[in-house]
Amino acid sequence: MNIGICGLGTVGSGTFNVLNRNTALINARAGANIQIVQIGARRDNPACDPTGVSVTRDIFEVVDNPAVDVVVELIGGTTIARELVLRAIANGKHVVTANKALIAQYGSEIFEAARRQSVMVAFEAAVAGGIPIIKTLREGLGANRIEWLAGIINGTSNFILTAMEEEGRAFDDALADAQALGYAEADPSFDVEGIDAAHKLVILASLAFGIPLQFDKVYTQGISKLELQDVAYARELGYRIKHLAIARQSEGGVEVRVHPTLIPGNSLIAEVDGVMNAIMVKGDAVGPTMFYGAGAGAEPTASAVVADIIDVARALNSAPEARVPYLAFSGANFNGTPILPIEAVHTAYYLRMSALDKPGVLTAVGSIMSDRGISIEAIIQKRPRPGQDHVPLIMLTNKALESDLMAAVTAIEDLDAIAGKVVHIRVEALDK
Amino acid sequence: MNIGICGLGTVGSGTFNVLNRNTALINARAGANIQIVQIGARRDNPACDPTGVSVTRDIFEVVDNPAVDVVVELIGGTTIARELVLRAIANGKHVVTANKALIAQYGSEIFEAARRQSVMVAFEAAVAGGIPIIKTLREGLGANRIEWLAGIINGTSNFILTAMEEEGRAFDDALADAQALGYAEADPSFDVEGIDAAHKLVILASLAFGIPLQFDKVYTQGISKLELQDVAYARELGYRIKHLAIARQSEGGVEVRVHPTLIPGNSLIAEVDGVMNAIMVKGDAVGPTMFYGAGAGAEPTASAVVADIIDVARALNSAPEARVPYLAFSGANFNGTPILPIEAVHTAYYLRMSALDKPGVLTAVGSIMSDRGISIEAIIQKRPRPGQDHVPLIMLTNKALESDLMAAVTAIEDLDAIAGKVVHIRVEALDK
Repeated sequence: MNIGICGLGTVGSGTFNVLNRNTALINARAGANIQIVQIGARRDNPACDPTGVSVTRDIFEVVDNPAVDVVVELIGGTTIARELVLRAIANGKHVVTANKALIAQYGSEIFEAARRQSVMVAFEAAVAGGIPIIKTLREGLGANRIEWLAGIINGTSNFILTAMEEEGRAFDDALADAQALGYAEADPSFDVEGIDAAHKLVILASLAFGIPLQFDKVYTQGISKLELQDVAYARELGYRIKHLAIARQSEGGVEVRVHPTLIPGNSLIAEVDGVMNAIMVKGDAVGPTMFYGAGAGAEPTASAVVADIIDVARALNSAPEARVPYLAFSGANFNGTPILPIEAVHTAYYLRMSALDKPGVLTAVGSIMSDRGISIEAIIQKRPRPGQDHVPLIMLTNKALESDLMAAVTAIEDLDAIAGKVVHIRVEALDK
Repeated sequence: MNIGICGLGTVGSGTFNVLNRNTALINARAGANIQIVQIGARRDNPACDPTGVSVTRDIFEVVDNPAVDVVVELIGGTTIARELVLRAIANGKHVVTANKALIAQYGSEIFEAARRQSVMVAFEAAVAGGIPIIKTLREGLGANRIEWLAGIINGTSNFILTAMEEEGRAFDDALADAQALGYAEADPSFDVEGIDAAHKLVILASLAFGIPLQFDKVYTQGISKLELQDVAYARELGYRIKHLAIARQSEGGVEVRVHPTLIPGNSLIAEVDGVMNAIMVKGDAVGPTMFYGAGAGAEPTASAVVADIIDVARALNSAPEARVPYLAFSGANFNGTPILPIEAVHTAYYLRMSALDKPGVLTAVGSIMSDRGISIEAIIQKRPRPGQDHVPLIMLTNKALESDLMAAVTAIEDLDAIAGKVVHIRVEALDK
């Protein structure tokens, strides 16, 4: 099987190197002779040495090369990449891609085109790097009605949060560290505003629940506004704050949301630190599971790209209907379950407010909550610092409807005894 | 696709119930209509209601039933199960099994028979219940040269160890608890002597390293002789004791061994408690990964059985050479790497001895170690209890050859100042 690689950046060079280093092993597993026949890249990459392989500066040459059976798209972005992938498909070539933004935003169009041409489009590397979570959801847990999944799927955010928690660094400092170490881009907004995680979650939610890819419906909140004091108070309450991507089957729809989240400090996923990724999946038969590994980097991502190449090699001569469906469910089996707006989400909350240190304030806040059917699970009230008349008041609520919670927050903010905004962070028990 | 289930115990009834409850979802994922056409079981099981399905007391009737495409073997054991599976294959039927002992001991014979008949034999449920570790090793991590894997793959042993660690219970007490809760059999030796874990490890090692199934070559040691004081000392040293199944590519061969192991208390797998399972896999491209979930129980195991049924349904009409190879490598691609005897293993050790409380003993022990090139990483020497002249002396060594370590142990036991045996437990850093 002849492959053409488009893009020779971090993942492209990693893919080239893994294919070259482990050739015999990979071919023995695939039962095929996998060869790189062409590489399309705007520039060379000192991280790999493609001597002996045809290299072109025009990536579209790879896509139009009659000798290429499989196009491996590793250029990123959604404009040229979309054009490239659609042209590869039109040319009857199979596609392997690591491009989460492309699949999340244009997956429906791409899979429809691929279906018409009877070609495969594989995208294991688009979510959580080397962790085979796409295969796990599509195949390994195929017997299950998925109840929920929750993942740490943005390594940059997790690195920053770990530094905030363990070293007491503020967000800006921790971000600067991440940038210095190459874990964050110069423009970090894709990562720290949650967009990257939202791209990945759209894909996971589609695979888990059989719903179409709907990037515009995902509630997306990053970690850029997270304050160090909330990280510390969370710890005091026995929790840790992680940036979680959550998809959950709920009454009347699916919750699909990305945001900082308090999780119990003794849960396994709370121990996932630094740039590592992990995804918990709860299935009705299997119960809770977790899948952990490197979510980015040249070779971890290449591990997933090459696994896809092996899968494509095996299925090359199979009937299209015998292949694993692009989005886990065969044919047009999307179910009509809507994605719920964030207002309709049920979850528990952490609230922090600055309250005047006088009798009656807690009662006023408590009655606003109970009027809306929200019960309070735990409270921390700090002593006032010398010279200050306001104190931090921290609460954990039981599960409530987000719209009720937000109404309560507005009412609390209107109290004269409360200064400024009420910080609210969602809390997940991850146990059912 | 018509399936026949042989055995209606815990896993059989779980499989029946999952297939029935999630029929629409499973068929949509499989792109096939999967039907149970016959069940063979010696007796009914109140845990499921197979009304409408033909039930026979003669399991071989299922195997000979011309309407059955896939035989699901869930009777356990290695005598009748072996006969049943071989007859199913001879009849041209595909086989799905959860039987680890059967695959570990008779897998070579079974896969050879299946290859001749061009039928599939799927066994995801044989290792780690609902965790799709077979698929992960055969497919998801297919790009990697596996460096090592280490798993908690016997839930009974992990439950007992967790009770010993967290509740300070002795082995016998914790075992009695496990039996009362149904986590351990009346005869617990398969679990607590490590045999069940060894069966599973044989399978994992073959998939990871491309070596034949060789149950007789696995070093197998259970937890039944583990003393509570060693669990406590391990904690004091920053470690936890887990019953690990380890396979590692080493110089000159593969280490395949099952034994109680000290692991760093801050490693993710150290947090895997109770009956849960987890397997770490280190690949050269992907780096460290971990896969966590329920390793036993009716529905977790059924999750894996049904995932296999879906895989078989997809590949039903595919060419045999396009299917994933039984043991991960296609054709007769076994490599000749031998399994190392335990004497040739390199690892670190925890040692505990009872030493006379007088000057010079530590020096004598230290010189025995250094004479054999073994260096000591940490020592705890306890004060003598009133009226006792011996004190516990605990050491952690650096990595050493097992045969050197055992020679040192024998020499230490020969010292007049040392009473009784030297307890030795292997230590794994799980970091490279």
